[in-house]
Amino acid sequence: MKRLRKIGFSKLTSLEDALNQLFSHIKLNPIEVIKTAKSLNRILAVDIISEIDIPPFERSAMDGYAVSAEDTFGASLQNPKKVKKIGEIEIGETSELVLNNGEAIRISTGAAIPKGADAVIKIEDTDIEKNIVSLYTSLVPNKNVSKKGEDIPLGTQILNKGLEIKPEHIALLSSLGIDKIEVRKKPEISVFATGNELLEVGTPLEKNKIYNSNTPMISNLIRIYGGNVLRESTLKDDKKIIKDTLIETAKDSQVIIFTGGTSVGTKDFLPEVIHEHGTVLTHGIAMRPGSPMLIGKVSNTIVFCLPGTPVAAYIGFLKVVGPTIRKLMGCLTIDPRIELIAKISKDIPVSAIGYISYLRVKIEKSEEDLWAIPVKLKGSGVISSLTQSDGIVEIPPHQEGLKKGESVIVKLFPK
Amino acid sequence: MKRLRKIGFSKLTSLEDALNQLFSHIKLNPIEVIKTAKSLNRILAVDIISEIDIPPFERSAMDGYAVSAEDTFGASLQNPKKVKKIGEIEIGETSELVLNNGEAIRISTGAAIPKGADAVIKIEDTDIEKNIVSLYTSLVPNKNVSKKGEDIPLGTQILNKGLEIKPEHIALLSSLGIDKIEVRKKPEISVFATGNELLEVGTPLEKNKIYNSNTPMISNLIRIYGGNVLRESTLKDDKKIIKDTLIETAKDSQVIIFTGGTSVGTKDFLPEVIHEHGTVLTHGIAMRPGSPMLIGKVSNTIVFCLPGTPVAAYIGFLKVVGPTIRKLMGCLTIDPRIELIAKISKDIPVSAIGYISYLRVKIEKSEEDLWAIPVKLKGSGVISSLTQSDGIVEIPPHQEGLKKGESVIVKLFPK
Repeated sequence: MKRLRKIGFSKLTSLEDALNQLFSHIKLNPIEVIKTAKSLNRILAVDIISEIDIPPFERSAMDGYAVSAEDTFGASLQNPKKVKKIGEIEIGETSELVLNNGEAIRISTGAAIPKGADAVIKIEDTDIEKNIVSLYTSLVPNKNVSKKGEDIPLGTQILNKGLEIKPEHIALLSSLGIDKIEVRKKPEISVFATGNELLEVGTPLEKNKIYNSNTPMISNLIRIYGGNVLRESTLKDDKKIIKDTLIETAKDSQVIIFTGGTSVGTKDFLPEVIHEHGTVLTHGIAMRPGSPMLIGKVSNTIVFCLPGTPVAAYIGFLKVVGPTIRKLMGCLTIDPRIELIAKISKDIPVSAIGYISYLRVKIEKSEEDLWAIPVKLKGSGVISSLTQSDGIVEIPPHQEGLKKGESVIVKLFPK
Repeated sequence: MKRLRKIGFSKLTSLEDALNQLFSHIKLNPIEVIKTAKSLNRILAVDIISEIDIPPFERSAMDGYAVSAEDTFGASLQNPKKVKKIGEIEIGETSELVLNNGEAIRISTGAAIPKGADAVIKIEDTDIEKNIVSLYTSLVPNKNVSKKGEDIPLGTQILNKGLEIKPEHIALLSSLGIDKIEVRKKPEISVFATGNELLEVGTPLEKNKIYNSNTPMISNLIRIYGGNVLRESTLKDDKKIIKDTLIETAKDSQVIIFTGGTSVGTKDFLPEVIHEHGTVLTHGIAMRPGSPMLIGKVSNTIVFCLPGTPVAAYIGFLKVVGPTIRKLMGCLTIDPRIELIAKISKDIPVSAIGYISYLRVKIEKSEEDLWAIPVKLKGSGVISSLTQSDGIVEIPPHQEGLKKGESVIVKLFPK
């Protein structure tokens, strides 16, 4: 019993259970309407149905002549068919011209097919002399004609709610004339690093102190995951300061992230304060690094206490906080990291059976394969083990380790 | 000769030659100093050397007792060694305590090792009763002690110029106390879509016209690649409008991107205007889609004319414009796209020998492999061929095609 109190939590929860419980408390953020052109990286709140046909009219796919396919039958370089040019249609133009057999109309790519025409012959397959056009190839009807709605018929569901919007989606929405869309509001998030040892970056170094690197790291992770950083600072290990900050910040932040103060030091007040003013959902997760994590709720605000060591805080963010931010926005992919398959370059024993282990690796390319090279590290405080790596390999709780050459999934760091 | 005039450029340049020539005209953007915490995705302009040691002092890697390792020699669960607790050192604290043989000082993770101590015994390996601490394990000197500078010694080059800054780099810079850094200014870029057929998104659909999707797509690609969008609009196919816009915009934009108007239509004025007011560096690149691309210079401004069809404009951006933006910032990786190795799911014949072909593919995961599934497409105007794909496979100019099951490199779309 005494041993358990020292560890600070009597039982570690599996990451899966912790996330399931947490997600049962999440309500979707409200919707806001924004300009499509300004929607990069936002999360679509509704399905998008095309209200027009794409293309919106029958148009030419080539520069050439609009003709009746019938007039080209049997045409070849040796035996050209001849028709009379009766006019021109430029892109964007609405022409009254009507084509009859034996005639051709000069047409640009993207211009509307005139009445009477059912094919377009490429300019390269023709010659013209005194308004008489020689056609050197035979066309089937509809050749080089893009039919109305052939790319996207009116009524098609073209994008799904929960999508993270990228330039190609903005292009698609714009081509449908959709200039405003409904997206989920960005969660408002505050970040505090706790610890008497922390100095603000930009102040002189003091004896036995270190610079706070957690809040700038986490704020920028929040931005990548789509949240909005509301407040950001360091706090002393003082119960009153921590309590007042928590209560005040819970009024306007949907998520509060603390780093440090969750372990078993005599000054680790966070678990106590959250228990007194809200609910501790999980304290201690079976993951390494990152086990002393706490997930709680104060009013409607989700509170995370991440370990104070930067690498553990980083991994805790990727596995728990980031997915929460995206869940709040109804995002389909709550973990946006790209996965590669690679071969592990050496045997990796795992000491902590029962924990998910996170191995930092660098990716190297050989002739045929990608290799995941474990980055040697001395502890979860060493930030350079992150800056020298490309991503993370997860070793499941009951696997004893990895064998050299084994295929592993590498999740690249979020960008 | 007549045939050549129709094509609009007498000879296609290889992409490699076009880029080499273009890059020889690029001067690095000036440097600006910004807050480290606000430097996400910016490009570092100088190498960063650590001016302090990390850790900055000798500190405990564990919660436990600072001791003299000598006092633990031979200790075990059956045969504990006993020492006297003489005080406590919290993290961030500067203590006057000095440890003598036979003594222990309670110490938190991250706290400074007191004078006289050379090891830390974990709290789990001890018990305490009335100030007498039982030590249950034997320690070698320096056990659980992080030496000053052991992660990063003063004077280490920790980050290289040209790096794109991510949260982990911001953490590293912050931990070194570096609150401001030198980065390259963002290039100022203007984007114009030309064409009489173009409607602004948000206006009613008109007969035989289409909505402009190129400028919102390209503006957001510019943002992803690190540029700043200065101006953005559509232009009529009118030589005077195009000329005036080009000359005016060249005064304050480092890069101007036009879409449309580079082919052989009677209203394709761009090549002419650029030739009259600057230099055409390349017109026509051996790539598909994207071949009618033009690269030019007007005063010190780089001018790109991309094809008007959205997919060709998109690929032209990825291969030429994007790398130029990053080159202007001195970025080490001018193409930021992530590469996967996958197997192609079916035979792909290539019709246009001599051109680089860009195949849009979707990625699917099977048991052991990633598969690249070609996305069927009808032309370079079909934006949904992008939204249904994950990335692009490049087929080199003199390769006849791909065989089912062959390994290919897929470059994922930029995010």
